[in-house]
Amino acid sequence: MAELGIGLIGTGFMGKTHALAWRAARAVMGGDLPEARLELLCDTPHDRADDMAGQFGFARATDDWRALVSDPRVDVVSITTPNGLHHDMACAALKAGKHVWCEKPMALTLGEAEEMAEVARAAGTVTMVGYNYIRNPAFRHAQKLISEGRIGRVVHVRGWVDEDYQADPDLPWTWRARLDEAGLGTLGDLGCHLVSLMVGLCGPIESLVADTQIIHQTRPLPDGTGRGAVENEDTATALLRFASGAHGSLSTSRSAWGRKNRLDWEVHGTKGMICFAQERMNELQVYLNEGPKAEQGFRTVLSGPDHRMRPATQRLTPISASSSMARVRRCG
Amino acid sequence: MAELGIGLIGTGFMGKTHALAWRAARAVMGGDLPEARLELLCDTPHDRADDMAGQFGFARATDDWRALVSDPRVDVVSITTPNGLHHDMACAALKAGKHVWCEKPMALTLGEAEEMAEVARAAGTVTMVGYNYIRNPAFRHAQKLISEGRIGRVVHVRGWVDEDYQADPDLPWTWRARLDEAGLGTLGDLGCHLVSLMVGLCGPIESLVADTQIIHQTRPLPDGTGRGAVENEDTATALLRFASGAHGSLSTSRSAWGRKNRLDWEVHGTKGMICFAQERMNELQVYLNEGPKAEQGFRTVLSGPDHRMRPATQRLTPISASSSMARVRRCG
Amino acid sequence: MAELGIGLIGTGFMGKTHALAWRAARAVMGGDLPEARLELLCDTPHDRADDMAGQFGFARATDDWRALVSDPRVDVVSITTPNGLHHDMACAALKAGKHVWCEKPMALTLGEAEEMAEVARAAGTVTMVGYNYIRNPAFRHAQKLISEGRIGRVVHVRGWVDEDYQADPDLPWTWRARLDEAGLGTLGDLGCHLVSLMVGLCGPIESLVADTQIIHQTRPLPDGTGRGAVENEDTATALLRFASGAHGSLSTSRSAWGRKNRLDWEVHGTKGMICFAQERMNELQVYLNEGPKAEQGFRTVLSGPDHRMRPATQRLTPISASSSMARVRRCG
Amino acid sequence: MAELGIGLIGTGFMGKTHALAWRAARAVMGGDLPEARLELLCDTPHDRADDMAGQFGFARATDDWRALVSDPRVDVVSITTPNGLHHDMACAALKAGKHVWCEKPMALTLGEAEEMAEVARAAGTVTMVGYNYIRNPAFRHAQKLISEGRIGRVVHVRGWVDEDYQADPDLPWTWRARLDEAGLGTLGDLGCHLVSLMVGLCGPIESLVADTQIIHQTRPLPDGTGRGAVENEDTATALLRFASGAHGSLSTSRSAWGRKNRLDWEVHGTKGMICFAQERMNELQVYLNEGPKAEQGFRTVLSGPDHRMRPATQRLTPISASSSMARVRRCG
Repeated sequence: MAELGIGLIGTGFMGKTHALAWRAARAVMGGDLPEARLELLCDTPHDRADDMAGQFGFARATDDWRALVSDPRVDVVSITTPNGLHHDMACAALKAGKHVWCEKPMALTLGEAEEMAEVARAAGTVTMVGYNYIRNPAFRHAQKLISEGRIGRVVHVRGWVDEDYQADPDLPWTWRARLDEAGLGTLGDLGCHLVSLMVGLCGPIESLVADTQIIHQTRPLPDGTGRGAVENEDTATALLRFASGAHGSLSTSRSAWGRKNRLDWEVHGTKGMICFAQERMNELQVYLNEGPKAEQGFRTVLSGPDHRMRPATQRLTPISASSSMARVRRCG
Repeated sequence: MAELGIGLIGTGFMGKTHALAWRAARAVMGGDLPEARLELLCDTPHDRADDMAGQFGFARATDDWRALVSDPRVDVVSITTPNGLHHDMACAALKAGKHVWCEKPMALTLGEAEEMAEVARAAGTVTMVGYNYIRNPAFRHAQKLISEGRIGRVVHVRGWVDEDYQADPDLPWTWRARLDEAGLGTLGDLGCHLVSLMVGLCGPIESLVADTQIIHQTRPLPDGTGRGAVENEDTATALLRFASGAHGSLSTSRSAWGRKNRLDWEVHGTKGMICFAQERMNELQVYLNEGPKAEQGFRTVLSGPDHRMRPATQRLTPISASSSMARVRRCG
Repeated sequence: MAELGIGLIGTGFMGKTHALAWRAARAVMGGDLPEARLELLCDTPHDRADDMAGQFGFARATDDWRALVSDPRVDVVSITTPNGLHHDMACAALKAGKHVWCEKPMALTLGEAEEMAEVARAAGTVTMVGYNYIRNPAFRHAQKLISEGRIGRVVHVRGWVDEDYQADPDLPWTWRARLDEAGLGTLGDLGCHLVSLMVGLCGPIESLVADTQIIHQTRPLPDGTGRGAVENEDTATALLRFASGAHGSLSTSRSAWGRKNRLDWEVHGTKGMICFAQERMNELQVYLNEGPKAEQGFRTVLSGPDHRMRPATQRLTPISASSSMARVRRCG
Repeated sequence: MAELGIGLIGTGFMGKTHALAWRAARAVMGGDLPEARLELLCDTPHDRADDMAGQFGFARATDDWRALVSDPRVDVVSITTPNGLHHDMACAALKAGKHVWCEKPMALTLGEAEEMAEVARAAGTVTMVGYNYIRNPAFRHAQKLISEGRIGRVVHVRGWVDEDYQADPDLPWTWRARLDEAGLGTLGDLGCHLVSLMVGLCGPIESLVADTQIIHQTRPLPDGTGRGAVENEDTATALLRFASGAHGSLSTSRSAWGRKNRLDWEVHGTKGMICFAQERMNELQVYLNEGPKAEQGFRTVLSGPDHRMRPATQRLTPISASSSMARVRRCG
C-alpha cells in the first residue's frame, strides 16, 4: 500500500486542523489515496512537541524544524506556524524535495511569496496554500454552474469577510499588530481567503483601488507600561476590475462585532446570481432567470451526496494568489 | 377642523403611492393631523387624469400642471413625474407658496438640485424628498440605538441596493437610458435611497472614490430599427469616508437578478453592530457586546408597537441629499 | 359612479384596519370597484364615535349599533366588536338586507355560527369572515401551484400560529379569560386563521384529536382583590385528518415568547413542498422535485407584480369555517 | 499511555462515521483521553472487510461478528449494522465484557430493547446509543440555559424531524419497508433522534396520543415482478404530555421533499423561548423576556469557543430512550 510520511510544523489551531485532516483523509476519500503516515511533529519547546505528538498520533517529535524538513521519512511538510516563518520553512522543505502544504498568508511580502513560488517551480513537488474554502462542495458547485454558463456572463461580484477578534478596544497589544512580524492585518488573516474564492469564481483581478483603516490606533501593552501602536489595518475595502471585464468590490474587517466566520460573496451574471455565506456553509443560494417569472426565486441548495468533495487534482500556483494579495496591499 | 388641500402630479406607481398615503395618513396617525382634502389631480391626457381622479378619490382633474401648482385650493403639491420634470414643477409650486413633497431623485443635475433648495429656503414652506425608507420604524430604532451610544463609536458602514429590472439583456431601450432625460441610472433610481439611509445613520459623507459600469452597452430599439446606446450606469460602487471619521462602502445595481427590493446596510460600532435588509423590512438585526460571550448573538428585533412611526417633525433639507448624490456622480 | 355606503361598528385595532381598507380599496384595486362612501361609524360612548369618525373620515357617528345596521344609507356593515357581539349584530344586519364583513372568530359557539350562516343564506347578501391571510398573494400563489398539481398529491400538512400577548404570567386578568364572554382562547384569536389557511390549501378537515392547556391558571385581578381564573386555553394542538386523505397537525399558543405574528404552515406533496411564514409574509418557500438533484432546493419566491391580489369573487361560506372551529373546540 | 482496542461492525454510512470519530477523538478532545487503537473491523464478505480496514486504518479484518465481540484485544464494540442485528450483537458484546456504542434505533421492539438494557446493567460496562445530536454544543448550551431557569418554567415543546429519502413514489421496495426486518419506519430512522433531544431538554414523556400514515402503500419490486407492500410508517405525529406538566407535539416524515436533515425543535418557557434547526446546526435561537421590549428579539447564538463540546461523562441509560420509543409505537 502506498504511503506518505507526514511532517507537521506547529500545533496551534491550524496545526490541530492539519493533524485531523491527515488522520481523516483516506477514510473520507477512499482507499485509492495513499496512507498518510504521521511521522514527525515539530513545535517548541520539545515537551510540547512530545505531548502533542501523543495527542495527534505522530510517531516522533522534534523541536527543530530544519531537522523535520530534511527528515528522510518525511514526504510532505505541513506548515502552520506564524506568518513570518512560512517563507524560510517552505523554501527549505522544497529544496529538500518535499511536497508542501503551507498555511495562508503565504508570506509577509510579495517579494517573499514570489521567491517561494520560484523555488516551488524548481522543486517540481506538489504544493498547496491553505485556502480550504475553495474545497467546499458548495463552492465547487458554484464554479460548475458558472463554467457551464448557467448564470450567463459574469458581470459583477462582491464579497465580505469579517470576524470580531479585534473588535474590542480593550484587547491587549500583541505582535500581530506589527508590520514586520505579522505583515498584513485583516487582509492577511481574512481577506486572502476571499481573494482565493473570487479568483476561483471570476478569474484574475486586473486592477483595483482600495482604502484601509486602523480603527484602534493603539492598544494597551500587556506589561502595563503604556500603549503600543497598531501598524496594520483593521478594515480594508477595494473596488475591483477583473481581467474578464467584470467589476466588483470586497471588504474585510477583523473588528466587526458579531461576525464569527463571515465570508460571503455574490456573483452577478447576465442570466442569474449565486450567493454564499460561510456561516451557513452548506447552503448555496442560486437564482436563475428560467421558467415563469412568478415561480422564480433564490434556491437554497443544500450540499449533499450530489455535490461531492474531490481530492485536489490541480496544483494551486502560489504566485497567482500572492500577486493578488500584493496588489491589494499596494493600495492600502 | 384643519384641512390641507392636496394636489398630486402623476398617476403612475409613485402617484398611486402618494394617493394612498394621503388617503391613509390621518386614519393611521390620529386626529391631531389636519384632514387631507384630495383636491386636484394632474396627468395627461385629460381623460386619464379624470379616470384616475375617480379611482383615487380626487375632487377635480387637470392636464395642466401649471394650473395645479397655482390653484388656490391646493396647499401641498406631490410631484411624482419623471425625473426631468421635478425641477420646474417644484420651483413653480414653491414660488406659488405651496408645500412640496417631491419624489427622488430630486433633479437631473446638482445645479438643478441646488437651485431647488435655494427656492425652497426662500419660500419657507415645508418640503420633503421622497426618501420613504428613513421613516421605517426599524430604521428609526436603529438611529435611536446609535444616538444613545449603544453600539459605541460608528467606525464602518456598508450598504447595497439592488433590483433586477434592467438585468435582462433583451429588454428594449427606453428614454431611461439617456443622460439628458433620466440623468443617473441605478444611482438615481436606487442609490440615492441608500445614501439617504447612510447619511441618516452616520452623518455626512466627506469624500469618496467610485467606479461605475454599463453592463449592457446597447439595447434593442422598440421600433425594430436597430440598437440604442445605454448612457447611464447599471452598477456603481464607492469607497466612502464620512465626516465623522468612519469608513465605508456602497454598491448598487439595477441588473442584479433575483433582487426585487434589496436595500441592505450594516453599521459597525466599537460596541456592536446593526444590520437591516429591506426585503425583510420589519426586522432589525442588532448585536451588542453585552453580557456573557456565550449568550451574545445577533438579535432579530421585529418592529411592533414599541417602535412607533411618527409624522416627520424636522424638515429634510434637500441640499444635503443632492450634494451627496452629486459627489457620487462626479466619480462615475 | 356606483357607490356603496359603509357602516363600521368598532374603532379598536380591527376597526381602524377596516377603515383603512375601505379608504384604500378602490385606489388599490382600480376604478371598476364601486366607490366606498364612509357613511356611519358606531362606537360607545358617542364622543368616541364622533372623534373616530373625524379621524377615519366617516360622515356620521352613532352610539347605537341597531341604528347603524338598519340605516338606509348603509349598504355594507363591518363588524369589529368583541366576539360575543358578532352574532347579534351580524344577524340584525343580514335581516336588514345588508352585506356583512364580520371579524373572526364568527361567534362564541358552533350553534351561534350555524345560525348566522343560516341567516346569511336567507338574506342572499354578500358575506365575509375576516380571514385576511387567505388574500395574501403568496397564499394565492401556493393555492395555484397546488391546484395545478405542481407538488403532486397533498399528503401531509402542518401549521403553527403563535403570539406572546399572554406569555407574561404577571399580566392582569381580563374578560378575555372568560368562556362566556370571549369563548375560545388562542383558538379563537389565532387558531381559526390557521384553520382558514389549511382548509384553503387542503380542503375540509374530516376528523381530529386535540389537546389544550391552560398555562397560567389564574391571573391577578386588576382591582387588586386577588386572582381570577383563566377559563380558556393558552395552547391547543391537534392531529388532523383531511377529507382528501392527507394527515397533518396544527398547534397554537398565545403564550409563545418572541412570536409577534407567527403563522407558519407547510404542505407536503408527492412531488414537492410549499412553506410559508407570516412574519416574512412576502416570501413563499417552494421545493419541487424537478431537474437535476444537485440543483434542487427550496426557492424563496418573493411576492411581486406576477402574483396579483384580486378582489374576492367567491363568497366565503361562514358555515365551513365555523364547523371546523367547532370540531376543534369539541376535543379541547 | 492508556489504550482502548476498538472493534467496529459495519462499514456503511454510519460505519464510516464511527471510524472517523474514533480516529479523531483524541486529537480533538485532548491527550487525557485514552488512545483509540483501531483493532478489528467486521463486514461481509471478507474481501470488503479487508478493503475497508485498509481505508479506515484498522489493523485486522473479519467477516465473523461473533469473533469480533469476543476478541481479547477488543475493548469497545461499535455496532452500525441494520437495525435487526443490534440486539444480538449488543447482548453478545456486553456478555463478553465489552463496552458498547450501538447505533439507533436500539432494537426492533420494546421487548428487545428492555432485554438489552438489562444485559447492559448486568455487564456494568459503558454503553451508549448513537444519539449524536445531544452532543452538539448548541444543544448543550440550550440545556444549560434551561437548567439555570433562564426561560423560566418549560410549558410547551414542539419538534419536527424530516428527510426526503422516501419521498419519491417510484423508489423501489426494499427490506426497510418490512416490520420484521426494519421495525419502525420514520420513527426508527428519524423520530428517535427527536425523542432523545426532547427528553434531554424537558425530561421524560408521560403519555401521548399519535397518528401514523403510510403515504406510498406499495413500491415496485426491484426484480420487476410487481409491487411490494410498505409495512411501516412514512409519517408519525404525536401529542405529548411530559412528566413535568409541559405539553407538546412531535412530527416526523421520511417523505418530506426538500428536507435533507431537518431536525428542529422549540422549547417554550414562561420567561423565554429557545429554538434550533439542525440544517443550521451552529445556530441557537434564544428569546428572553429581559430588558426593554423595544430591544427584545430572538438572538442567533453561533456556537464557538465559549460553547465547548465535552466527552460524555454520564452514561445514557438505554431503557429511557427505548421506553419512549415504545410508547410512540403503541399508538401507531
